[in-house]
Amino acid sequence: MAQKPSIPKGTRDFNPEQVAKRNYIFSTVRSAFETFGFQPIETPSFENSNTLMGKYGDEGDRLIFKILNSGDYLSKANEKAYSEKDSNTLTSSISEKALRYDLTVPFARYVVQHQNDIEFPFKRYQVQPVWRADRPQKGRFREFYQCDADVVGSDSLWQEVEFIQLYDTVFSALKLDGVTIKINNRKILSGIAEVIGASDKLIDFTVALDKLDKIGEEKVKQEMLGKGIPQSGIDKLAPLFSISGNFESQIDSLKAILSISEEGKKGIEELEFINNAISVLGLKTAKLQLDVTLARGLNYYTGAIFEVAAPEGVKMGSIGGGGRYDDLTGIFGMPNMSGVGISFGLDRIYLVLEELNLFPETVSKNVEVLFINFGNKEALFSLKAIKQLREQGIHAELYPDAAKMKKQMTHANRREIPFVVLVGDQEINSSTYTLKNMKTGVQEKVALDALISSIKRSPEGQFRT
Amino acid sequence: MAQKPSIPKGTRDFNPEQVAKRNYIFSTVRSAFETFGFQPIETPSFENSNTLMGKYGDEGDRLIFKILNSGDYLSKANEKAYSEKDSNTLTSSISEKALRYDLTVPFARYVVQHQNDIEFPFKRYQVQPVWRADRPQKGRFREFYQCDADVVGSDSLWQEVEFIQLYDTVFSALKLDGVTIKINNRKILSGIAEVIGASDKLIDFTVALDKLDKIGEEKVKQEMLGKGIPQSGIDKLAPLFSISGNFESQIDSLKAILSISEEGKKGIEELEFINNAISVLGLKTAKLQLDVTLARGLNYYTGAIFEVAAPEGVKMGSIGGGGRYDDLTGIFGMPNMSGVGISFGLDRIYLVLEELNLFPETVSKNVEVLFINFGNKEALFSLKAIKQLREQGIHAELYPDAAKMKKQMTHANRREIPFVVLVGDQEINSSTYTLKNMKTGVQEKVALDALISSIKRSPEGQFRT
Repeated sequence: MAQKPSIPKGTRDFNPEQVAKRNYIFSTVRSAFETFGFQPIETPSFENSNTLMGKYGDEGDRLIFKILNSGDYLSKANEKAYSEKDSNTLTSSISEKALRYDLTVPFARYVVQHQNDIEFPFKRYQVQPVWRADRPQKGRFREFYQCDADVVGSDSLWQEVEFIQLYDTVFSALKLDGVTIKINNRKILSGIAEVIGASDKLIDFTVALDKLDKIGEEKVKQEMLGKGIPQSGIDKLAPLFSISGNFESQIDSLKAILSISEEGKKGIEELEFINNAISVLGLKTAKLQLDVTLARGLNYYTGAIFEVAAPEGVKMGSIGGGGRYDDLTGIFGMPNMSGVGISFGLDRIYLVLEELNLFPETVSKNVEVLFINFGNKEALFSLKAIKQLREQGIHAELYPDAAKMKKQMTHANRREIPFVVLVGDQEINSSTYTLKNMKTGVQEKVALDALISSIKRSPEGQFRT
Repeated sequence: MAQKPSIPKGTRDFNPEQVAKRNYIFSTVRSAFETFGFQPIETPSFENSNTLMGKYGDEGDRLIFKILNSGDYLSKANEKAYSEKDSNTLTSSISEKALRYDLTVPFARYVVQHQNDIEFPFKRYQVQPVWRADRPQKGRFREFYQCDADVVGSDSLWQEVEFIQLYDTVFSALKLDGVTIKINNRKILSGIAEVIGASDKLIDFTVALDKLDKIGEEKVKQEMLGKGIPQSGIDKLAPLFSISGNFESQIDSLKAILSISEEGKKGIEELEFINNAISVLGLKTAKLQLDVTLARGLNYYTGAIFEVAAPEGVKMGSIGGGGRYDDLTGIFGMPNMSGVGISFGLDRIYLVLEELNLFPETVSKNVEVLFINFGNKEALFSLKAIKQLREQGIHAELYPDAAKMKKQMTHANRREIPFVVLVGDQEINSSTYTLKNMKTGVQEKVALDALISSIKRSPEGQFRT
């Protein structure tokens, strides 16, 4: 019995149109990365398990895909775990490799491993898939791409400025106008925690605060209370919940709240530096917004925190995020390497461009012209012309079989090929080609030069490289 | 204790230069695929195990990387295999997914699964990594890319003709002149086996014959004897071993040998058709050669067999291969789908281009200009200019910190950045920029327009997109 074919849940096949649209986003992002001076690296799809395990918390460890050792893997199985059927403990003895979970830990590993060959500060970008054994749901997959740019080896705030410009450049190039680049600073959050007497509960505090948009002020306060943050402290948060206005007035409110926190004041200073620079430099289509509730649920940011929201009216989670982390490589034995980076959410950007109909019509590199096959003599004559067309960069092909003309024309129509060429005895004898525009139905008999220039001049020809 | 970081054996990190060189090959191949009318698809990195297992023989099954089920995977373990510690039998009960082993089986699965959305004949290309638990050695990796183009749904020989043109187009575009495209036909091999009375030993016969280049005529004959092919049959092979000369005279020899085999004669007819078409159409830099010993050790080719050898003088195995297989999708319940395809060996092509020094100098998309950072005022002034440069496609960056000038200049030198720009008070006051050519040492003070055009006009600027 033949199997009914399927793919694992949470994974996807991409058809030619989808590949072309994804590549359009990738190449826009890559091109911007490169004009900003970032250079590409690639790391293996799987790493040694000990490189990944323990770096993403318990939940992360569970979601990492482990690769079974080859050969008689049970011969090295942990005997105690085996006799107790303890899956969790057994794993490390029968699996030494695991699929990449994100691009940041492999990058840290790369930097440490190749530190002698790297000229710091090192600006790298990386566009590769990652894998997570998450429960699949709308917009969440088990295999998906990350697009990251990071700088390691400098704590200059100019990089935060440039990352904001980079977001603006990419989204403007994608014609996705009006995204909001939200910014916050871990030091602001630390300062607030200090002020409300919850310095030892910074994570609980930020995790709760991060939910403000989703669950509202009251529930956030309840969660904080539940985590042991005192009511007196929460009361001091009142001005925080009502902060509004533009960047500058928000900064003024924060200055009032954080006047007694050195760390908080440092965070304010950093935000002001960045905002002042961006004000002078200007953004093309994005806007920069201070969002003191932004924490991104991540514990490793130490300075700036970024998140990008789709234009108003588009319901979609964040389409990008990132921040500053002061000790990227310490876990691999290389301390004091400050890093800062941002990431683009390919799948969500794709959905937003689709929803707003922003993919260029010419993104799919379809065939431009199909030569109808009337038999071997005609096919050979056609292939001579096709060779010339291809040398001019025109995407051209011959229908492989001398099938009925109707079948071949239907094929051209279904594939939305804009031109067909008909070659019969008459054309061969006069070295001409009958070119038919499939949209208008207009046919003309032309020489090879005119054939090439007609196709090149047509609107359908503009995607040629 | 910090871990000493490393990567699994048989895998590789790629630094920016290597990524750029690999992308140069990829984009050359992709661009040719597209002008020939092939369209890209992508499939998931892992497939359901039952999609892959049993498709590549026992050896293949062993070399497939299996992914351990998530969670308490032992709860569903095959009890008998578990109690007997039988790794091999246990696997399917604790692992449901496996990493892609090649691109052909996933393509067959894709075609069957999406058959209602595909317009046949379907010309697809696919450039993705595959994984094999092979013993790593020079030029053999556990993670490597395959670049495949296939047509499914037509048995027209024009496709074989076009694949030869496609090989010629790609290798010519890579400036890798003088490759040999070897061609054979399974029907020729079947015909010869028939003639020597070894029809039931076709696989043994072709596997032995395939080794002619490596082990020589005598050892090939010994292997055939060992496999039970009669001496009388092997004696009839004498003309085969001495076949030489050009395509046409080889065909003549084959006609003599195969006159009593219908299948052999069909094979000859196909070879002649292809050779005649290529003679008329011409090849740019490759040559087409009939090689009756070519079998590629693969059992599934049913018609044409291709293999590409690097130019003479370069010691390297085949840099490409492919062929016709009459039943690509039968295994997934969709019979009678003829397919034909070719593959490019990225890693070997890379080594050949490196050896022959054929990578263009501009392939690495390095930063073109570094602005020296003398402090925040100067940095902000510089970023205004950098923004304009980037909008012109120039790869520009600011040194992030106001470090000592010597350190910044050394950084530019080490990264081989061709230009630096120096901005001090004088420049800010006069809205000019001091541009230094790092190769010649020449410095000039210029306005922004001249800065842009100087960099654009320079030879280092030609890689700009």
